[in-house]
Amino acid sequence: MIDTVQRSASRLPVVVAVGMTPFAAHHADKNARDLTTDAVLACMQDAGLENLNQVEHGITSYESDHFNRQMTMGAILHDQVGMIPKPNLRVEGGGATGALALRTARAYLLSGMCDSVLVYGCELNGRSVSSQTANQLFALSADVDWEVMLGGTYTGFYAAMMRAHMEQYGTKAEQFAHVAVRNRRNAARNPLAQKPLELTIDEVLNSRMIADPYRLLDCSLLSDGAAAILLSTRDWAEAHSERFAQRPPIHFSASGCGTDTMRLGDRFPNITNFAAKKYAAEKAYEQLGITEPKRAIDLAECYDSYSGAELQSMEDLGFAKRGQGGPAIAAGEFDADGILPVNPSGGLLGRGAPVGATGIAQAIEICLQLWGEAGERQVYGAQRGLTDTHAGIGSICVVNVWEQRD
Amino acid sequence: MIDTVQRSASRLPVVVAVGMTPFAAHHADKNARDLTTDAVLACMQDAGLENLNQVEHGITSYESDHFNRQMTMGAILHDQVGMIPKPNLRVEGGGATGALALRTARAYLLSGMCDSVLVYGCELNGRSVSSQTANQLFALSADVDWEVMLGGTYTGFYAAMMRAHMEQYGTKAEQFAHVAVRNRRNAARNPLAQKPLELTIDEVLNSRMIADPYRLLDCSLLSDGAAAILLSTRDWAEAHSERFAQRPPIHFSASGCGTDTMRLGDRFPNITNFAAKKYAAEKAYEQLGITEPKRAIDLAECYDSYSGAELQSMEDLGFAKRGQGGPAIAAGEFDADGILPVNPSGGLLGRGAPVGATGIAQAIEICLQLWGEAGERQVYGAQRGLTDTHAGIGSICVVNVWEQRD
Repeated sequence: MIDTVQRSASRLPVVVAVGMTPFAAHHADKNARDLTTDAVLACMQDAGLENLNQVEHGITSYESDHFNRQMTMGAILHDQVGMIPKPNLRVEGGGATGALALRTARAYLLSGMCDSVLVYGCELNGRSVSSQTANQLFALSADVDWEVMLGGTYTGFYAAMMRAHMEQYGTKAEQFAHVAVRNRRNAARNPLAQKPLELTIDEVLNSRMIADPYRLLDCSLLSDGAAAILLSTRDWAEAHSERFAQRPPIHFSASGCGTDTMRLGDRFPNITNFAAKKYAAEKAYEQLGITEPKRAIDLAECYDSYSGAELQSMEDLGFAKRGQGGPAIAAGEFDADGILPVNPSGGLLGRGAPVGATGIAQAIEICLQLWGEAGERQVYGAQRGLTDTHAGIGSICVVNVWEQRD
Repeated sequence: MIDTVQRSASRLPVVVAVGMTPFAAHHADKNARDLTTDAVLACMQDAGLENLNQVEHGITSYESDHFNRQMTMGAILHDQVGMIPKPNLRVEGGGATGALALRTARAYLLSGMCDSVLVYGCELNGRSVSSQTANQLFALSADVDWEVMLGGTYTGFYAAMMRAHMEQYGTKAEQFAHVAVRNRRNAARNPLAQKPLELTIDEVLNSRMIADPYRLLDCSLLSDGAAAILLSTRDWAEAHSERFAQRPPIHFSASGCGTDTMRLGDRFPNITNFAAKKYAAEKAYEQLGITEPKRAIDLAECYDSYSGAELQSMEDLGFAKRGQGGPAIAAGEFDADGILPVNPSGGLLGRGAPVGATGIAQAIEICLQLWGEAGERQVYGAQRGLTDTHAGIGSICVVNVWEQRD
């Protein structure tokens, strides 16, 4: 495999502009089309574009037809945002959908098949659009033939993984409760976040038990929302967006992806961590020659679908040694004022997670931070940020790296 | 936009191997996993690979969660075919899904992000896996908010387009009935085809009226099936597959994609043809410097979801002048012994159409023809073949071009 960064530096994608809606449990009177339009209009405004006539390609990101009771919604959204007759495709990979859409935009740009791509994602997970609730539909993202029939749910699988981590490494509930507290506190400084909360560790530890060891406040949110990023070659950005020249340029400099079995049982006895995430991170780090990720990465948005999932991910991403995620988190290493701020946006726990928009929103947070436009939650001096996004319990993991460099 | 062929000839994807299942209304005791496995095993056998350890990336192609009552099925299929921990994503775009998956594999290969990609697609459309029939579910691929509520169906929209074509250009039912007869006759020489039939024009014209002007025998099939293609750089193919060197090399040399509104009413009064297909074809031809497609293309697999859709497509692809598709078809220009054989496989009418596999199966037919391995239906002397695949009534259109050259 060729080192893409070396080979085609001039085609390396840059971020032209970003836009997103507030994330919320429910946007009254807004469906997937409306939310997508809002996010894309915000992105166009950010880029200083009056229309999308010059943008060459669209990539649509959403998780499931079930949430909208609509097939081929990519064609509808592509029309809605004004991109006809330009090419379109939809990318999907469960929770990793948004990050895979960005990764695929990266492939199209590096390939030379186009010079600009608008990636837009949305989901209506906070409310039901069919006769079934979002939770019932999410059950279908576990293996229907082999797990769901036995009553398996993702909360249960995540809980089993964390229980194994506790037993193998002595990880404590107070340690992952720290994530539940910190990310919701971070969300309080994010005006688009769904559920900012000021909590104590004790409040998390005393909240209702859902699936041992996870309690109510360890669990992330179901959200409605949309997000969009315009990526292009540097030449295209300079030619089409005056705004681009006014900000430090951000390059989408590396992307790794790895996979694992959907069924937890198939991974036994190695169930304390996300093997596919480690694989994805290693691939991304290789592309940049990174050997000490904790030093090399300045901030990260991580997939805290459950508080402990962030703890496990710190190890898989190389931010803590295997088994040492708990102490590192409890010591505040990943807090807003820590050595490597994680989830300054509030993460899935505090900002929210409309699936098809989540990975895109993570990248938007990194961009705002690297541009110095993150307001009250600004992390100072950051030049390289990472997004970590996964499907299911890590069946598909994507690690994307974004760098501010000239 | 850079001419990708000129820029990176050494990365231009080649076809390593192909594999597919028979297409059928129903495969007893085979679900999407089984069919996908069968297709991938056939592809591995074709490549002479014992396993997929060396293959770097997987791309999954299927249309809807509704057909399987399973979300993120890409993760399951990727595991099923033995590709963990390699990267995976799912691509979707209605009827164009398989062609978009191949197009996306092309982007990943040209980008340098990987050197080999297995594209595998499947669908269970021939039978129902939920409480609703496939036809009821397909209704959800029209615009649910604006069309389906009014009773709109795709057969009706296709019929309205063809009726407009007849009125504007004097096209006759006998002319598109020729497609219904020819493609099913071609299917009789394809051992994997779903519904070979020896028919007469009169039999088509006297079959039951479905939506004027379309009769039962003008309509294509609902199918179960799977198909897989292994694409790579030429270097990878030469290093990993002995079989590759034994065949004339086939390059995936161009790809165009265009889009149009999902709703027919939004295109009024221009409803006789597929504007997005014309756009997609022009983009593909530009990449190869083709100005006379009827001379430059030796054979094609076209999206004959209805007999008249092939007639309209002949015009949009530049194989007939606007309005002259009918006479060209009736004159036999696109028959097996014509100037430009179309749908030698039998097409959607005769071979069948399991959506996520359809675009891949079209490309497989082109490969078999260019390799000289198409048996009884061999088109002699062909060096350049085209696949034409679309979603809905042409909301997303993809034109991929495959060439045999050293």
